[in-house]
Amino acid sequence: MKAVVLLSGGLDSATVLAIARSEGRTCHALSFAYGQRHEIELAASRRVAEAIGVEEHVVFPMDLRVFGASALTDDIDVPKDVAGAPGIPMTYVPARNTIFLALALGFAEARGAQEIWIGVNAVDFSGYPDCRPEFLEAFQRVIDTGTRSGVEHGEPRLIAPLVTMSKAEIIRRGVALGVDYAITHSCYDPDALGHACGHCDSCILRRRGFEEAGVSDPTAYIEG
Amino acid sequence: MKAVVLLSGGLDSATVLAIARSEGRTCHALSFAYGQRHEIELAASRRVAEAIGVEEHVVFPMDLRVFGASALTDDIDVPKDVAGAPGIPMTYVPARNTIFLALALGFAEARGAQEIWIGVNAVDFSGYPDCRPEFLEAFQRVIDTGTRSGVEHGEPRLIAPLVTMSKAEIIRRGVALGVDYAITHSCYDPDALGHACGHCDSCILRRRGFEEAGVSDPTAYIEG
Repeated sequence: MKAVVLLSGGLDSATVLAIARSEGRTCHALSFAYGQRHEIELAASRRVAEAIGVEEHVVFPMDLRVFGASALTDDIDVPKDVAGAPGIPMTYVPARNTIFLALALGFAEARGAQEIWIGVNAVDFSGYPDCRPEFLEAFQRVIDTGTRSGVEHGEPRLIAPLVTMSKAEIIRRGVALGVDYAITHSCYDPDALGHACGHCDSCILRRRGFEEAGVSDPTAYIEG
Repeated sequence: MKAVVLLSGGLDSATVLAIARSEGRTCHALSFAYGQRHEIELAASRRVAEAIGVEEHVVFPMDLRVFGASALTDDIDVPKDVAGAPGIPMTYVPARNTIFLALALGFAEARGAQEIWIGVNAVDFSGYPDCRPEFLEAFQRVIDTGTRSGVEHGEPRLIAPLVTMSKAEIIRRGVALGVDYAITHSCYDPDALGHACGHCDSCILRRRGFEEAGVSDPTAYIEG
């Protein structure tokens, strides 16, 4: 079965790709060059695609900076040491997963893929509305009403295997599948060499995940 | 009130922009350079934005050709003289309106716009699943569950003023609002000077619309 897999190069999407491969899917990986401050994420996505194995890996260029208004695409400083604070985080990118899923949908339909796999997680990312199951259900309805393949075959189906898993559970699952997390990248604010800052939301969640999973953390952090 | 208006440069979206302006909206027009075969559409969208009046006009570059599989983005010939044939037309672009609305949503949220206006029409374009009211309702639910502004304020709202209008009704409404349809462009297969072919689905629907509206057709057609 053919699947489009959204691949950021982070820990979660690498695990999703490994699960999809372990369940026998032929994977068409899709990444976005969306005006990130760092090319480091894309380099990680290429390493992950190569290591886990995909049919093809398309990097879609798309400059969301024309819209502005997010720490991940703008020149706003990435917030540090505030993981778990209530409300929608500063790092929320307007409609990001809606945009990514819409493009994954075009890609899936063009390739005849029956599934779209996405590594959203409603446990650690509860502040992001577009990481919750009710958002995914709403997007499935968009597929089923708005596309040829949705109307004719009820496809593609959205698959979000991590949605209710903790970071530690995700890491244990990935380790069991042989994922090398050293090649993944999660930090929102790395240095020029790709070392992780250790203090942004993403770094804190990742570091805690390894601790709770009882797995040695292979991440290269900035010294000090 | 601030509104994002999807603007293709065609007859329908020009009419939508004129309606939004007539209802007092401050309009942020959004067009896409999505690997069309012709830049003529974009030139028309710029003329329309200028003539009707917008706060800003953003042209978002996005090359859907990496996904292929449509007569509008691929090298497949545009079908001629088949308007109204049953089924989903060859000119269907996978997930096109889903992709356009997703990006309009990111733009609307970044600008704090309360509405997104789109010129979809379920009468003439009944073969396109993403032009139907049930698709728009599903996308509204994506907004309401998946974005900060949707969760917090139930905005932006999708406005599709043409959805149940015939082409003749659209043209009469636009003429009443002073729209100059000579500056709009609808043809899927124009010549290098931007003259309309007169035989693709879009030309046929447009030509019939002017006839039925009893309005003289200002379109420049290829001779013969």
